[in-house]
Amino acid sequence: MNSPVRTAVIGAGRAGMLHAANAARWTVGAQLACIVETDEATMEKSGAELGVPAFPRLEEALTATDFDAVVITTPTYTHCDLAVASVGHGKHVFCEKPMALTLGECDQMASAAEKAGVTLQIGFVRRFQREFVEAKRRIEEGEIGEPMLVKSLTRGPGLPPAWAHDIHRSNGMLAEVNSHDFDCVRWLAGSEIMRVYAETANFKGAERGVTVPDFYDNAVVSLRLASGALGVVDGACPADYGYDARVEVLGSEGMILIGDNRSVALVEVRARGKGEVPTFVSWGERFQPAYRDELRSFVEAVSAGSRPVVGAADGRAAVAAVLAANRSWREGLPVRIGDEGS
Amino acid sequence: MNSPVRTAVIGAGRAGMLHAANAARWTVGAQLACIVETDEATMEKSGAELGVPAFPRLEEALTATDFDAVVITTPTYTHCDLAVASVGHGKHVFCEKPMALTLGECDQMASAAEKAGVTLQIGFVRRFQREFVEAKRRIEEGEIGEPMLVKSLTRGPGLPPAWAHDIHRSNGMLAEVNSHDFDCVRWLAGSEIMRVYAETANFKGAERGVTVPDFYDNAVVSLRLASGALGVVDGACPADYGYDARVEVLGSEGMILIGDNRSVALVEVRARGKGEVPTFVSWGERFQPAYRDELRSFVEAVSAGSRPVVGAADGRAAVAAVLAANRSWREGLPVRIGDEGS
Amino acid sequence: MNSPVRTAVIGAGRAGMLHAANAARWTVGAQLACIVETDEATMEKSGAELGVPAFPRLEEALTATDFDAVVITTPTYTHCDLAVASVGHGKHVFCEKPMALTLGECDQMASAAEKAGVTLQIGFVRRFQREFVEAKRRIEEGEIGEPMLVKSLTRGPGLPPAWAHDIHRSNGMLAEVNSHDFDCVRWLAGSEIMRVYAETANFKGAERGVTVPDFYDNAVVSLRLASGALGVVDGACPADYGYDARVEVLGSEGMILIGDNRSVALVEVRARGKGEVPTFVSWGERFQPAYRDELRSFVEAVSAGSRPVVGAADGRAAVAAVLAANRSWREGLPVRIGDEGS
Amino acid sequence: MNSPVRTAVIGAGRAGMLHAANAARWTVGAQLACIVETDEATMEKSGAELGVPAFPRLEEALTATDFDAVVITTPTYTHCDLAVASVGHGKHVFCEKPMALTLGECDQMASAAEKAGVTLQIGFVRRFQREFVEAKRRIEEGEIGEPMLVKSLTRGPGLPPAWAHDIHRSNGMLAEVNSHDFDCVRWLAGSEIMRVYAETANFKGAERGVTVPDFYDNAVVSLRLASGALGVVDGACPADYGYDARVEVLGSEGMILIGDNRSVALVEVRARGKGEVPTFVSWGERFQPAYRDELRSFVEAVSAGSRPVVGAADGRAAVAAVLAANRSWREGLPVRIGDEGS
Repeated sequence: MNSPVRTAVIGAGRAGMLHAANAARWTVGAQLACIVETDEATMEKSGAELGVPAFPRLEEALTATDFDAVVITTPTYTHCDLAVASVGHGKHVFCEKPMALTLGECDQMASAAEKAGVTLQIGFVRRFQREFVEAKRRIEEGEIGEPMLVKSLTRGPGLPPAWAHDIHRSNGMLAEVNSHDFDCVRWLAGSEIMRVYAETANFKGAERGVTVPDFYDNAVVSLRLASGALGVVDGACPADYGYDARVEVLGSEGMILIGDNRSVALVEVRARGKGEVPTFVSWGERFQPAYRDELRSFVEAVSAGSRPVVGAADGRAAVAAVLAANRSWREGLPVRIGDEGS
Repeated sequence: MNSPVRTAVIGAGRAGMLHAANAARWTVGAQLACIVETDEATMEKSGAELGVPAFPRLEEALTATDFDAVVITTPTYTHCDLAVASVGHGKHVFCEKPMALTLGECDQMASAAEKAGVTLQIGFVRRFQREFVEAKRRIEEGEIGEPMLVKSLTRGPGLPPAWAHDIHRSNGMLAEVNSHDFDCVRWLAGSEIMRVYAETANFKGAERGVTVPDFYDNAVVSLRLASGALGVVDGACPADYGYDARVEVLGSEGMILIGDNRSVALVEVRARGKGEVPTFVSWGERFQPAYRDELRSFVEAVSAGSRPVVGAADGRAAVAAVLAANRSWREGLPVRIGDEGS
Repeated sequence: MNSPVRTAVIGAGRAGMLHAANAARWTVGAQLACIVETDEATMEKSGAELGVPAFPRLEEALTATDFDAVVITTPTYTHCDLAVASVGHGKHVFCEKPMALTLGECDQMASAAEKAGVTLQIGFVRRFQREFVEAKRRIEEGEIGEPMLVKSLTRGPGLPPAWAHDIHRSNGMLAEVNSHDFDCVRWLAGSEIMRVYAETANFKGAERGVTVPDFYDNAVVSLRLASGALGVVDGACPADYGYDARVEVLGSEGMILIGDNRSVALVEVRARGKGEVPTFVSWGERFQPAYRDELRSFVEAVSAGSRPVVGAADGRAAVAAVLAANRSWREGLPVRIGDEGS
Repeated sequence: MNSPVRTAVIGAGRAGMLHAANAARWTVGAQLACIVETDEATMEKSGAELGVPAFPRLEEALTATDFDAVVITTPTYTHCDLAVASVGHGKHVFCEKPMALTLGECDQMASAAEKAGVTLQIGFVRRFQREFVEAKRRIEEGEIGEPMLVKSLTRGPGLPPAWAHDIHRSNGMLAEVNSHDFDCVRWLAGSEIMRVYAETANFKGAERGVTVPDFYDNAVVSLRLASGALGVVDGACPADYGYDARVEVLGSEGMILIGDNRSVALVEVRARGKGEVPTFVSWGERFQPAYRDELRSFVEAVSAGSRPVVGAADGRAAVAAVLAANRSWREGLPVRIGDEGS
């Protein structure tokens, strides 16, 4: 066996801690090297919890410890700088979605990684979840004919973190929550998004204390793909009732429903007439096996020097769709990919 | 079209009122003629509700009104007398399950009906429920090969009516609740029950005020069929959480699950992590379409003079299985059909 | 009981024959009076099959027989004339969806019925299907809070009838297939549609021999409602794999999934690893109980002189949404209700 | 972190290879030390595949390599000797179910482990599967009241290995396949099995070339527990259609269904009217996450010196139930635990 891939996790929020735990405990072939977290208290707590050194900034981690790869889980607007800096030190990069704030940043990250010859993988975790993988296989084998429509939805239970309320630093819910859906549509349809039209709504912002302008917590985006297929992405956050991610693919010869709400294969009936089915409460629970397989896949790509399953072009395409959807919403008109602005 | 089959419903309990409403409102080809109910107050209430004459005894109904058929829904120990009397007046008979209290009574009913040349149908309603009919069709077409095991369960929400607590007048829960299951096993397996072994339990009797001896509210009965196939019937009443009837058939080349708990094709998620699925609360709800099709089928058999879908031999076989199971439970030993006593 | 409502069914296609059979056999309170069908051979066959007189034109039926109500199931472009003529003779009208081809026609039908004091009901059958009724009840009781998003889809198995290929006589698939969805969105959201944006595609037309221009067999329509809620309607026809109608309602405090693919409560597993679940093959099967309850509801409204459950305003609103969606698709822009043209 | 638990896997059949792969690749904290396999060719192949030394006998492994624990996956009749020998060298033991052939062997293993102060864990993997764990939690919290009935079934797709056809070396299908069910019933009911009654059948033996006497491939076992609760275990092997393991617990205040057939959260509809749901094909797939968590749990118990989640008493109780059921089947009578013979 190869020596383990020593991994620094940047950002000790929920996603960071999940990846860190996976690196430390659930991935033969990975080794958690350290944590980087700007918030001092969080930094110390997370380092102690994981039993690894913790640093407030990437630079100090680079100086103080030795590692092979970074996992970037910080706010979107920091992705490009962190990725480029890591690549500059020869580190492989796993970057959470959304890849970056602008297409320019995406391009910068991609070309830096390419120049350095390191792996750059983007965190579209659904591509590692069994039902999605199996659906993709069936579609590729032609079981449902030519995809005519792909519908993908994501709902998150609670408010996004405060920094993400500001659309200028996050690109809004369509980026934070629905990036996965834009990726799923183009991946499962096997075709690029060409045109988008977005409607949004803000139902809960005010009551939850979000006062920034341009906040929306519901969205529906219609898509037209290069193949002629149609798509729909919808999102809601906070949805309160749990985490929900389901996709439907209609082909010329059949259809596939991917995912459901049920979290545990169990039904309980107590009150007369009311069956209870456990449903997913968080993305960590919903995609738990996929997060582990995703990190393993990254580690294997790093070890083998092979192309990652999800690359920079995938990350960029989702950012383009998000930017186009935000523009559509602002202008009240359909927007072609290519006209999304930066 | 034929003139409608004028129908007297005997017994204005829940089953009687359901059949009466079906005859009056939901069955083109049937006409509700009158109600017979010994309890005076119930008699008057039900007659008024249904807009038909009501009588305290069958004899008075026979004298006062004209009808073609009776639907018997009274306690088990009255079935034989009522059926034989009706047949004696040339009436066709639909008799709710269990057919009767003893095999002797079953034989008496069957031979009376045969002699009179009238229709005698027994109320195994599941044979008219779509999922059961479809399963039977698949089995008969050989889709799952030779049946190796049939498991059938029924759970009722509340205590049976008071008269039924007394096993000498009802044959107990295995008769009141599980008659349907014994019928399902032999019907779906296409083979007669040969041997039974029963275990019973009484979990709720005392707390619900049932003090008669020999009361049980849970039972498991193992079955061996003539074909060599195995069977299991289980029952619970009161189950409190609703009405539940499911069957599983394992064949040499596949298996079929029949029925589920869900009453309405709807999922609701409100509390985080808790999906709610509506489940069946009563047998009237669980088998609503089947009750209508069952009565229509009876009316058609009467009109056409054809054999009913469920006949006296079916009713008798279930009574034999119940008697054998009760004997098995009392003696703690397996009992062969033929040795069940009367 | 009232005397039965004598009903003439106009149009002996699939919908007509289904309503005629329901009137003849499944609806106590209704009586099938006659069939009207312009195609001579079909006319004779259907009359013989149903055992009622058959006429090639409404005028002849009006002269030759006596009836109280008509059920209109002919092509959309004939609805207005037939309804107005029927109303002119004092007949009550049940008109299949879509109500008519234009808003002008809708208005003409509504005012004629109002003037004549007869019942005019539109065929939005889903409002009578148990899972939809139950969902509406839950929403109205506030179980999921304020509706934020309603998604409704319909897929039909085969090509629409030939006359419906021509968008000028049918308003296309969005009218023929998705009228139900536009109605469901506004009914379940409790709010009117204000703006629509449509994308369409034509995947199968050419291979199925449909050569008329402006044919589409797939569509996605984004909706914005007066309440601020969002909506999505999608449709496909021919979908080949069966008939599919499902709705999802996301509220501020929960969500409801309405309907599923399963037609019979049964699972069969034969091949290793492959479970089979029966799914709906036709709209007649999918909404069988609702079609019966719908006709009964119409008959009751006629008998009682009460307002029908689904009225002219509902029919008109769906036509407006369809016209707006077709305009949006042609122009590539969102269209406000009110700007849909006639 | 502790140094990893070096583990020797004894037996390179399907179960052995699964545990070996889990030790080698999926369990941080475990390290695969070697393989022991008597069949020379299999031994070499498996050693090469896993990249570890392979030995034909335990003795040689003990001499040649260093390890902390053994995982025993060989035929039942070898369990006792291998376990006792391993314990004699101070090794911790994870022993697959059934624990052993006789109660005497079980006692010998238990007392040897206790004397040596090493961990002895039995392979009841379902106790680590999420839906089972969650059900147990709900039952213990009293959500469904007092357990009144536990039904547990297991069906295996293919013939058991040849050695297991001989009931004298395996205790038959009830041991090989249904040991898990006997354990589940007593674990979930929280009560010991007191009496059993078994019916068996042999449907496929002859056609599959199994000519040993006393072979059965279907069984139903009724159970009475110390608490007064009832139980049913049923099994079939070969079931051909896949691997199937489901449990139902009926309590005085509700019920829980555990597990279903579906292997992937996906529905595909291609042929008109036929939905396809992927179902489990093997026990390795059905309980994949549980097998990993089971080994991890063993490794943690070894590292911490804590009691294993499933111990010798659990293994023994299941063997007792199997022996009693086999006796019941042979004698055609119910058998009390304690009278099962050895």
